[in-house]
Amino acid sequence: MADDTKAMHLRKALDDNDRKHPLLAIGAVNALAAHVAAEAGFDALWVSGLEVSAASGLPDANVLGPRDLSDVVASLGRVTDLPVIVDIDNAGGSGRTAERFAYDLMRAGAAAVCVEDSAYPKCNSFAVHRAQTLADRDLLCEQVGRIRKVVGDGLVVVARTEALIAGEDMATAIARAEAYAEAGADAVLIHSKDAAGEQARAIGRAWSHGVPLVSVPTAFPDLSAAELGEAGFRLCIYANQLSRAALAGMRAAARQFRRGGSFRSTVAGSLAEVGDLMRVGEPEALSCL
Amino acid sequence: MADDTKAMHLRKALDDNDRKHPLLAIGAVNALAAHVAAEAGFDALWVSGLEVSAASGLPDANVLGPRDLSDVVASLGRVTDLPVIVDIDNAGGSGRTAERFAYDLMRAGAAAVCVEDSAYPKCNSFAVHRAQTLADRDLLCEQVGRIRKVVGDGLVVVARTEALIAGEDMATAIARAEAYAEAGADAVLIHSKDAAGEQARAIGRAWSHGVPLVSVPTAFPDLSAAELGEAGFRLCIYANQLSRAALAGMRAAARQFRRGGSFRSTVAGSLAEVGDLMRVGEPEALSCL
Amino acid sequence: MADDTKAMHLRKALDDNDRKHPLLAIGAVNALAAHVAAEAGFDALWVSGLEVSAASGLPDANVLGPRDLSDVVASLGRVTDLPVIVDIDNAGGSGRTAERFAYDLMRAGAAAVCVEDSAYPKCNSFAVHRAQTLADRDLLCEQVGRIRKVVGDGLVVVARTEALIAGEDMATAIARAEAYAEAGADAVLIHSKDAAGEQARAIGRAWSHGVPLVSVPTAFPDLSAAELGEAGFRLCIYANQLSRAALAGMRAAARQFRRGGSFRSTVAGSLAEVGDLMRVGEPEALSCL
Amino acid sequence: MADDTKAMHLRKALDDNDRKHPLLAIGAVNALAAHVAAEAGFDALWVSGLEVSAASGLPDANVLGPRDLSDVVASLGRVTDLPVIVDIDNAGGSGRTAERFAYDLMRAGAAAVCVEDSAYPKCNSFAVHRAQTLADRDLLCEQVGRIRKVVGDGLVVVARTEALIAGEDMATAIARAEAYAEAGADAVLIHSKDAAGEQARAIGRAWSHGVPLVSVPTAFPDLSAAELGEAGFRLCIYANQLSRAALAGMRAAARQFRRGGSFRSTVAGSLAEVGDLMRVGEPEALSCL
Repeated sequence: MADDTKAMHLRKALDDNDRKHPLLAIGAVNALAAHVAAEAGFDALWVSGLEVSAASGLPDANVLGPRDLSDVVASLGRVTDLPVIVDIDNAGGSGRTAERFAYDLMRAGAAAVCVEDSAYPKCNSFAVHRAQTLADRDLLCEQVGRIRKVVGDGLVVVARTEALIAGEDMATAIARAEAYAEAGADAVLIHSKDAAGEQARAIGRAWSHGVPLVSVPTAFPDLSAAELGEAGFRLCIYANQLSRAALAGMRAAARQFRRGGSFRSTVAGSLAEVGDLMRVGEPEALSCL
Repeated sequence: MADDTKAMHLRKALDDNDRKHPLLAIGAVNALAAHVAAEAGFDALWVSGLEVSAASGLPDANVLGPRDLSDVVASLGRVTDLPVIVDIDNAGGSGRTAERFAYDLMRAGAAAVCVEDSAYPKCNSFAVHRAQTLADRDLLCEQVGRIRKVVGDGLVVVARTEALIAGEDMATAIARAEAYAEAGADAVLIHSKDAAGEQARAIGRAWSHGVPLVSVPTAFPDLSAAELGEAGFRLCIYANQLSRAALAGMRAAARQFRRGGSFRSTVAGSLAEVGDLMRVGEPEALSCL
Repeated sequence: MADDTKAMHLRKALDDNDRKHPLLAIGAVNALAAHVAAEAGFDALWVSGLEVSAASGLPDANVLGPRDLSDVVASLGRVTDLPVIVDIDNAGGSGRTAERFAYDLMRAGAAAVCVEDSAYPKCNSFAVHRAQTLADRDLLCEQVGRIRKVVGDGLVVVARTEALIAGEDMATAIARAEAYAEAGADAVLIHSKDAAGEQARAIGRAWSHGVPLVSVPTAFPDLSAAELGEAGFRLCIYANQLSRAALAGMRAAARQFRRGGSFRSTVAGSLAEVGDLMRVGEPEALSCL
Repeated sequence: MADDTKAMHLRKALDDNDRKHPLLAIGAVNALAAHVAAEAGFDALWVSGLEVSAASGLPDANVLGPRDLSDVVASLGRVTDLPVIVDIDNAGGSGRTAERFAYDLMRAGAAAVCVEDSAYPKCNSFAVHRAQTLADRDLLCEQVGRIRKVVGDGLVVVARTEALIAGEDMATAIARAEAYAEAGADAVLIHSKDAAGEQARAIGRAWSHGVPLVSVPTAFPDLSAAELGEAGFRLCIYANQLSRAALAGMRAAARQFRRGGSFRSTVAGSLAEVGDLMRVGEPEALSCL
């Protein structure tokens, strides 16, 4: 499927008012995760700044560049046709860096990018060891406009505001999101860390602009996708759960090995087969193990 | 720690006749896996052709190039000082390709490379959907010699024979391994797919050359590291268990999500914390989640 | 311009029987060369195995991988919309490696790939320090078929035979080229090193199959593009002249510096302005120098 | 030669008070340029932000990342052992980005990095289409300290101030340079765009701190290396002359082709031989052309 077709399909699905259930995207840091996501029936993949940073051994602090993300997109595209939405953080904090991110990621086969208004250098939304600060609203508007100019309709552009994360009130968050929609974003994401999920519901009630709403419910996992759909969200992004599951699974296996001195059968229950691993990159592969 | 120092330390540890227990290496496909390996006390990391192929969405069939592997090595080196041993398969099947693999991987910070005598294009040792064939013995000798010339003592060179995998007898396997040692390899690996582990023990008995023996017990997981040590192996490489654990862990989490519509607390038992993920690339990170 | 559109335009231009003059492509190893090519009015860019190998410090001997070439394609696409034809040599000598080359290069924005029947590992067509040998005809047919399956119409596929380079006769060369056309190639290139250009004319006369003929006149520079057009070629590729001009230009400047101890005005005649360099990546840039 | 050895040699050469002539470094954007630089007897290579940006088709405005630069360093190292000094601009404008630049470039084989105090996002020193602004002095001090911590003695650290470029006076420039030296820089570079070269001489007179002075005489080409040496500079960096010579050479060749319709012999005087190009990556290569 040509890539601009992917963007077109994703835009259409986001804009489809007849959908009852939100689209479901899940973070995939490599083809293994993409394979799992496709098996499980997700609608889209998310390339997460936090997940790719962790996989690269880097802090989630604007240290990733377009090539780090492009490589991930290329890997995902080899095993599934699912549209890929790329978290480009604040896109390097300038208009010119935003242009490169957008061009490179469209090239790599992404269907969408998500750009946010954290101040450069950014800090993970849930980090408490550094302060959260916002960039000028106009900077993100400029970045959205420049991205649009570079990619045309070739990418869905999601604009994300960190206003609530940084302690601003709902009116400010809504005003920022509206400005980004006016600047050309196809969808908006008002990020929240309210664990109760009340803030998420409030965002849904407060949003009256036509462009679709996106949610990343990392902080409020008890709200189900269906509930988020009822609250007004058209796309739910599960940003880092697969990496967290992988981390937990690898830790458990390593612990068992250290205890028993082998990965023998009793351990093997928690390991996928060698053939399963081979089939991620070559579906017709058969293993003698 | 400078990289040639890592090669030196690894060479010394392999040559140390007083060690009772073999060195333990485990496959790590990204910094997440390296983080788990370091936590669990492994002695070294292995960059596996199969694991990196799967993570890249590619068949394990000589499709990976030096840059794919170098990027992994760079990521691992950001989170741990453990020596990294890189599986370069048949190094592209020629002397010149072997030179590039060795140069690029030394640059990237590897402590060792493992090069094998499968015929180009290779096929995974455990695959049964294509035939296993061997390259000329002289080709691997030439490759080992060229690698040595390019890297000096900057990399430990492990030479691996696929003779037993391809159906040759033990005498042939031993003769190949000896030729590779004479050509300049620092250690040899005679690969086996005998699930009972008897062949592994027989390798240990048949090997009388001075250079150390390496084992990759994927096919015979019931032999413990201690037993492999008694059988004569100085280094045991657990080549793909962490990716298989990650795959199993991600699948379980995805299944639970599909069943319940959320990654809520009941599911969360199987997920590492967001803060855990943040700390892979930034040890001092703190999360509000 | 979407990339499959570029392939479509290039295919149409190649198939256009009303064109009087052949299309002109020139090798561009980076955006600087692409900028020059666009200024000078060339119709397409060529990413040359020899030029990229030299720029990477590598022998022209199947040491380049898809990522080396993809990076070049991405750079060219940032400064011009000209269609990019990528020399993928023998595509790694197997069907699976050919699939990766094709997928990765389509992703990177190429309009075409050129794949040839040299035996893996290849040797530069004009090299005399190693022998030229041919791969099985069936292997290239398989590779062309697999590439076609992976990319659909997303890439123009040029198949190149090294038959004449390897000392085979014209009938063999024509038969190979026909087989490749039947296997799905959009155009064929029968390479020649006859300095007089007689062989090139003979190829034109001997070719009666419908798919268009391509020429790389490195060895017979005295035949003009117009003459090649009259001889039946629809596309002329000037494979490495810009790198050779760059090499000559840099050498002259370095020599002048060593003689005079500065790059002062007398030397500067042979240097482009700093502002010229700035404008390659940023057309609106202005310099104070 | 191990890479930390390269840094050691470069540091020693910079600190050698008995040298009469300054060390000479020249910008090399790929192995072709490095080959020319080595032939011509330069002492070191410079990886220029402007040159690499232009070759990548990007504005010189903090759009390059560590991987863009690392790839260049790896290519240079394949054809020469000359120490490579990498221009990392303001290293991404934060401490964490500086850490990644330094780690990645040391890995890639660099001997030195040069980090500057332009405000993020930077603007080329000679650009007049955007304003030049300075970062806080403390930020560069922090970056130098963090780089030092990551690389130890594995890289020579050159700190560059853009104070004079941004319109500050000499006292401010000197004070900044001294602060950077105190923060751990091995050498300092006070950039100047005074075409007469008077400012360069004034810098030499005003500098009394022990760490060596570096000059980039792009704007004052009439001052010879010997004169810069007398003025107190220990290292002269010719930052972009080879790319400018390549650009001029390629343009001339393309023009001649457009005029005559071929690259025939009359043109060929301005082209290096095909065999010359082959020998950049394979010194023993022989061509039949």
